[in-house]
Amino acid sequence: MKNFLFILIILSTGAICSKAQDSVQIRKFYDEALVNGQCYENLRYLCKNIGQRLSGSAGAAKSVEWSKKLMEGYGFDRVYLQEVMVPHWVRGAKEQAYIIDGKKKIAVPIAALGMSIGTPAAGITANIVEVRSLKELDDLGESVIKGKIVFFNGPFDQRFIETGAGYGAAGIQRFAGPSAAAKYGAVGAIVRSITPALDDYPHTGGTVYADGVTKIPAAAISTLAANKLSNMLRLRKLPLIKFYFKQSCQTLPDVKSYNVIGEIKGSENPNKFITVGGHLDSWDLAEGAHDDGTGVMQSAEVLRIFKATGYRPKNSIRAVFFMNEENGHKGGIKYAELAAANKEEHIAAIETDEGGFTPRGFSFQGASASFLKDINKNWKGLLEPYEADRLVAGGGGTDIGPLKETIPSIMLIGFRPDSQRYFDIHHTPNDVFENVNKRELELGAAAITALVYLIDQHGLNF
Amino acid sequence: MKNFLFILIILSTGAICSKAQDSVQIRKFYDEALVNGQCYENLRYLCKNIGQRLSGSAGAAKSVEWSKKLMEGYGFDRVYLQEVMVPHWVRGAKEQAYIIDGKKKIAVPIAALGMSIGTPAAGITANIVEVRSLKELDDLGESVIKGKIVFFNGPFDQRFIETGAGYGAAGIQRFAGPSAAAKYGAVGAIVRSITPALDDYPHTGGTVYADGVTKIPAAAISTLAANKLSNMLRLRKLPLIKFYFKQSCQTLPDVKSYNVIGEIKGSENPNKFITVGGHLDSWDLAEGAHDDGTGVMQSAEVLRIFKATGYRPKNSIRAVFFMNEENGHKGGIKYAELAAANKEEHIAAIETDEGGFTPRGFSFQGASASFLKDINKNWKGLLEPYEADRLVAGGGGTDIGPLKETIPSIMLIGFRPDSQRYFDIHHTPNDVFENVNKRELELGAAAITALVYLIDQHGLNF
Repeated sequence: MKNFLFILIILSTGAICSKAQDSVQIRKFYDEALVNGQCYENLRYLCKNIGQRLSGSAGAAKSVEWSKKLMEGYGFDRVYLQEVMVPHWVRGAKEQAYIIDGKKKIAVPIAALGMSIGTPAAGITANIVEVRSLKELDDLGESVIKGKIVFFNGPFDQRFIETGAGYGAAGIQRFAGPSAAAKYGAVGAIVRSITPALDDYPHTGGTVYADGVTKIPAAAISTLAANKLSNMLRLRKLPLIKFYFKQSCQTLPDVKSYNVIGEIKGSENPNKFITVGGHLDSWDLAEGAHDDGTGVMQSAEVLRIFKATGYRPKNSIRAVFFMNEENGHKGGIKYAELAAANKEEHIAAIETDEGGFTPRGFSFQGASASFLKDINKNWKGLLEPYEADRLVAGGGGTDIGPLKETIPSIMLIGFRPDSQRYFDIHHTPNDVFENVNKRELELGAAAITALVYLIDQHGLNF
Repeated sequence: MKNFLFILIILSTGAICSKAQDSVQIRKFYDEALVNGQCYENLRYLCKNIGQRLSGSAGAAKSVEWSKKLMEGYGFDRVYLQEVMVPHWVRGAKEQAYIIDGKKKIAVPIAALGMSIGTPAAGITANIVEVRSLKELDDLGESVIKGKIVFFNGPFDQRFIETGAGYGAAGIQRFAGPSAAAKYGAVGAIVRSITPALDDYPHTGGTVYADGVTKIPAAAISTLAANKLSNMLRLRKLPLIKFYFKQSCQTLPDVKSYNVIGEIKGSENPNKFITVGGHLDSWDLAEGAHDDGTGVMQSAEVLRIFKATGYRPKNSIRAVFFMNEENGHKGGIKYAELAAANKEEHIAAIETDEGGFTPRGFSFQGASASFLKDINKNWKGLLEPYEADRLVAGGGGTDIGPLKETIPSIMLIGFRPDSQRYFDIHHTPNDVFENVNKRELELGAAAITALVYLIDQHGLNF
């Protein structure tokens, strides 16, 4: 009994010492991020000197080259490219659109959805049918839809506290709406921008055509213009209102591109990996600052902070700049394929692709109640002083998702920053460097560093 | 024993029912704030149609009149003004400042500190001494300081997670530095702007002269200019570098002004009060959007949400738009005096004056460990779905502070939004409506409404 007690004391003293050591180490990471942080200036370069970098574009190629040099400059143990073929969609000339009300033409701001086909060179003019959901579309059916332009105008539900939930709910119209409308014989689709904001910017984003469907051109319309169009449709008889739009986007042959990977080799388990990543590609309308320049720059910063503070991880840590998240996530698929093919063991992957805002915590994909209880018991207190301690169940992310299929034992983790402003600027010309706050970005990098450290030290089997 | 168990079951069922009811009620408040919220449009009016409203100014008078009408329009049980004499400081012509390096003059952006005296009409030219703390000033003493301009260049410590802590630490230079320099015979004081941002904006703010000290003119300098000046002082011999500045600010006789108060009468305890307030006055350089237009508009919104959702409070709830927080807090002092003189019972006062950013929680002034444990046990779970559940010890606020002296039993509570961006724009021309996010503002109003409701229903004696 005495021995037993003695062992208990040693064990619990050990746990306390380990907590204290973790706490000191995490504070060091934060100090480094906040006092000597480099991700903000790196992001400035990426946004201002490279700018938009849609898959297949010259910007994307330039960003790959620069990212590799950046991480080489940091002296990580290994920096390399992972080849991947990616779609090459181009927007072409600026889109045009009008509401046609008898003889009046009212110009409205639209932007072709990613992967949409273009219109004929002269554009498309047709009557317009408003629906607020895919169900409404189904209820109307072919007899009403055929030959028309479908106007998906489902609103963004403001009642969700995290805007990501609102984005997912309204987003189905953009992802699947045009394809569904095409099945009923629509000639085009106009989709209300998926944003809580009321403004004049169309928010682009990918749409997906189901196999075998006759593709129709699809574009996002700004929320203010959507309201105007909806009001006009309500007040006037339908046949009086027509809609015209013209876009010259097209999909060119696939292009060779790359994931960019930096690695610090594990001192104990070089073949066990913890991945932290974001995506290097961006939409073409702006600089891809929050989406997802912040994520890749934070990922590199995690490794830089480890080196700068002299922390030598037990497991190998990788910063992955994924290519092509926005319209295909071919980079994520490739990374998962190669991880399995190379027989790598993967402990966890953390994705940062919800903007460079103040950290709130992390979500653990498929986490059980007992896992959440344990991780909160063990680590919440360590992250609480940094207000990044919301450890909850939830998604990992698009780029790391495929890893779960090739390496089922992996834990996928999503970095969760404050969500309120993300979808205001998401996929618009406003996603620029000026809308990123230095401290918010750095706090995110530090929070991710802290989590990677804790996983590296203690694993995830509580 | 059976009866005892039975009572226990009833009591705990009661507690569960009450929790469920609270939860439903709070959700209603949030829905109202997020779907039908009016504080954002009210703030737009205050910022764009009234603008700056420094105590004693025409803007302040206009804002009082408009605020009263706004709350009368909402049909609160009582809307009234509380007269208070306030300081009337005016900036005068735009300030001028140069670093003088031999024959070179380098213009730098400064802004007179609130309540500072002006310079002589021709300005002041003098050698400059840099210090980084009040202690350094004391160490140099009169022999070095006399006849010089003191340049307070203590940096903003980026390591604090909440920027308010950094503001307080560096802020002492602005509050007390000029007066301390004057005691050693300085002829002027230039203070590094108290902000984590590196930019070209001088951040104004109040300074306080100790009684009996010979007042000297004092101004804030932008952080980039402060860095430039500091570098020049480091690289060149001191006598080569002089500084020139000119400002024509002055303090005019006190002016009659008002706190603006809206009230919903308590259905059970009309003479017991819960106050929620912010300040109506602002600095003169911008629109006082985050400081503190958001706070007053949130305060009125709390009462509006109660009415709109049909919640009839047990105790009287007051929205108080305090006058003169920025340079004297005479409104706060007056409110506390009258509360005591009128023999009002005050349960709690909540101040919202840290910007209209995403809520994180609330701080309870002088809260004991057991109080914090109890309030977290009882209410944290109710606020957690809204991510506004950080219930901690900490300050209440400047305007409600005097209540603690006149009504010692009161609990003072500070609303705590995310702090990262506040001091970037604080007291600068960038504190404008465009820098307020609608959802962030509304979430704050909803969080405060939820807390006022909980206090109204359950009190604070756990």
